[in-house]
Amino acid sequence: MVPHLITALTGPINELEARILESMPAIERWFRLEWMEHTPPLYATADLRNAGFKLAPVDVDLFPAGFHHLAPQMLPLAVQAAMAAIEKICPEAKNLLLIPRRGPRSSFYLSHLQRLVEVFNQAGLNVRLGALDDDITAPTAVAVPEGGELLLEPLLRGPRRLGLKGFDPCTVLLNDDLGAGTPALLTKLHEQYLLPPLHAGWGVRQRSVQSRNAEEVAKKFAKLLGMDPWLLHPVSASVAVGQANGAHAAESLQHGIDAVLSKVRRKYKDYAINERPFVVIKPDRGSTELRFVGVRDAKELANLEPTLRQALLDALERGGSGLLVQEGVPACERVNDALAEPVVCLIDRYVVGGWYRVHASLAGDAPLTALGARYVPLAFAESHRLPRRGEKPGASAPNRFYMYGVVARLALLAAAYELEASDPDAEVYD
Amino acid sequence: MVPHLITALTGPINELEARILESMPAIERWFRLEWMEHTPPLYATADLRNAGFKLAPVDVDLFPAGFHHLAPQMLPLAVQAAMAAIEKICPEAKNLLLIPRRGPRSSFYLSHLQRLVEVFNQAGLNVRLGALDDDITAPTAVAVPEGGELLLEPLLRGPRRLGLKGFDPCTVLLNDDLGAGTPALLTKLHEQYLLPPLHAGWGVRQRSVQSRNAEEVAKKFAKLLGMDPWLLHPVSASVAVGQANGAHAAESLQHGIDAVLSKVRRKYKDYAINERPFVVIKPDRGSTELRFVGVRDAKELANLEPTLRQALLDALERGGSGLLVQEGVPACERVNDALAEPVVCLIDRYVVGGWYRVHASLAGDAPLTALGARYVPLAFAESHRLPRRGEKPGASAPNRFYMYGVVARLALLAAAYELEASDPDAEVYD
Repeated sequence: MVPHLITALTGPINELEARILESMPAIERWFRLEWMEHTPPLYATADLRNAGFKLAPVDVDLFPAGFHHLAPQMLPLAVQAAMAAIEKICPEAKNLLLIPRRGPRSSFYLSHLQRLVEVFNQAGLNVRLGALDDDITAPTAVAVPEGGELLLEPLLRGPRRLGLKGFDPCTVLLNDDLGAGTPALLTKLHEQYLLPPLHAGWGVRQRSVQSRNAEEVAKKFAKLLGMDPWLLHPVSASVAVGQANGAHAAESLQHGIDAVLSKVRRKYKDYAINERPFVVIKPDRGSTELRFVGVRDAKELANLEPTLRQALLDALERGGSGLLVQEGVPACERVNDALAEPVVCLIDRYVVGGWYRVHASLAGDAPLTALGARYVPLAFAESHRLPRRGEKPGASAPNRFYMYGVVARLALLAAAYELEASDPDAEVYD
Repeated sequence: MVPHLITALTGPINELEARILESMPAIERWFRLEWMEHTPPLYATADLRNAGFKLAPVDVDLFPAGFHHLAPQMLPLAVQAAMAAIEKICPEAKNLLLIPRRGPRSSFYLSHLQRLVEVFNQAGLNVRLGALDDDITAPTAVAVPEGGELLLEPLLRGPRRLGLKGFDPCTVLLNDDLGAGTPALLTKLHEQYLLPPLHAGWGVRQRSVQSRNAEEVAKKFAKLLGMDPWLLHPVSASVAVGQANGAHAAESLQHGIDAVLSKVRRKYKDYAINERPFVVIKPDRGSTELRFVGVRDAKELANLEPTLRQALLDALERGGSGLLVQEGVPACERVNDALAEPVVCLIDRYVVGGWYRVHASLAGDAPLTALGARYVPLAFAESHRLPRRGEKPGASAPNRFYMYGVVARLALLAAAYELEASDPDAEVYD
């Protein structure tokens, strides 16, 4: 159930929805052909923002959490998608080794893990959990708040394979984003499938590259539908390491902010959108070291809390991660008065459901410093797959979910492009 | 909702269910490996009979009807399975031509067609209906009882392709079982995928071959689980054309009946089943020309209604279809007092749901002359995919549905073997 979901859809998004619904066969065919050329990540979640006038993915998590938020009636879909994925990767697989996120694990995360085990177990694999944490030196039972327990076992690394005591998996499923670095025991596993691969980790991925791929995919897709790609991705600029030091860092960042804001202002004018644009500043690399920062004007930089401002500038010094300045996409969806952000969950090429992150007491265009705020998950009640034909755009939840599924798959495809390009073992065909 | 479903599960079936649940990963792996070697039919329904002491498929329909009986919450599963199927057959497909059963079409059948169109449409194809009927000479709208309408269009046959006016499909989906013969306009379509292929039609298929393949698959599977294959398939004997004429026909049939009954009696004795076995006599070929006949003793043949008896014997004369004598599997499931037969619905290798055929006023071991009786469909309420671990065998509906899904896939695999062997275009590797 998605109660009291109020969407203020206006103008372009209605056109966008209408266009997407009427083009469904062409869209599905386009995805089929893209997936022939590009391998989707095994699993992912895509964070979307529905601005009313545009719908864009703002992040893709390749080590997703939150699977326990999926509505129970969607579970068979996840299992079926997992079956299809295994079939392609390793049909003869018996055992799946799942490696959870390191270190303190919230009760939310444990429920997610339990669900993940369930999905791959129902898909027909023996699933066991191997912990990267140094303090797991013997099998350790951990209680899951909603009932049951999980057994975390110490990993055993042989010269060529990774496993557990008495458990030799064909595939290793990684759920740690490697933001804290890549443990040696995950490297050089040439006999096993490690999914996602190490170069999907936050030690390697760059948000600027993610953003460039999202733009490329949005352009290809928009061309298919004869529409403006800006409606499907956030504009961005990367402010890179090495260009800047000292006072020059602040200047580079200001330039980046100005460049993005002026592009967005032009678009707002074209579409007669009567709102004040903002940007979100993110570290280009890494999952956690820097909070996301939202500003409406390059001048606001000077007024930022000094430690936050310094952290941003430090990211631009030699050795820092660099920064990405991304167009802020306001969220127009509300549950009661709270801001709701859709998260779409994908396994292989299939959308298997999703949920809303409901931020209590956040305005739609709030500066996003508060983005890490607590949220309440709210499962999508209906399937994304079954749009209702002939329904007025914006009027039907399933239609909106179909559109979400399309935009989430664009983000997934962009991630596939990204991983292909960053694969250190890729064969190059010239 | 499956209300008041009472199952009288005893002895072996509880063991069977327990064995199947504990072996789930091995079973799923076995199926994955089988599907690597054998292509499943695009869609099918499998009729099962749950006797309490055994669970066996009694028929597989490769031109299935009844998709509108699927519970609405199962629809996304069907769509996802259809997507996976299309991806393999013809990823570049835009158009699907669906050929319905030749008329007259019941209101049930129209609802089924509407659902089938919906599934493949949501999977991303333009679906249109081409009629084999001679009286459809112009596009004809047919109202569907539950709302909406379907447009039946005349087929256009070119020298190499089949289509409709302004509609050139890459794949032709056949929903007529060809029991009335194979229309010339479906032959020699070497540029398009015709699915299921012509040799899946009832003009070609033989129930004796189906039965032999079911036995072969049951044996392979039973070996994997270390159990008696008889628990998973009905014993049968074919009484073939050409062997018999006149009085000799009756004698051949009696021998067939005796052979099956004595095998079944032995099994009943082994398992201490205190029931009286019966057999079902079916035409070996063809979908409709002969009603199924149930007898408990070869001597009952003499007491059959004379026209029915003559029809059986005629089937054994030169030019007749031959007969199959199949072990009758009593049904132990009841909805209130009515006998309930599970029907499992499959798309590609995936179980996408199912329903019960509820026969009011039929006893479980009733002679099956009444099998064509009216029935009420009752959708499976829960997914077959999600057995509950640790639940007592026989106690949980989802566990039973998982078992049904396994046995239905055995039947599907047997059909895949059958179609491979009967494929006139098969390449032979020696």
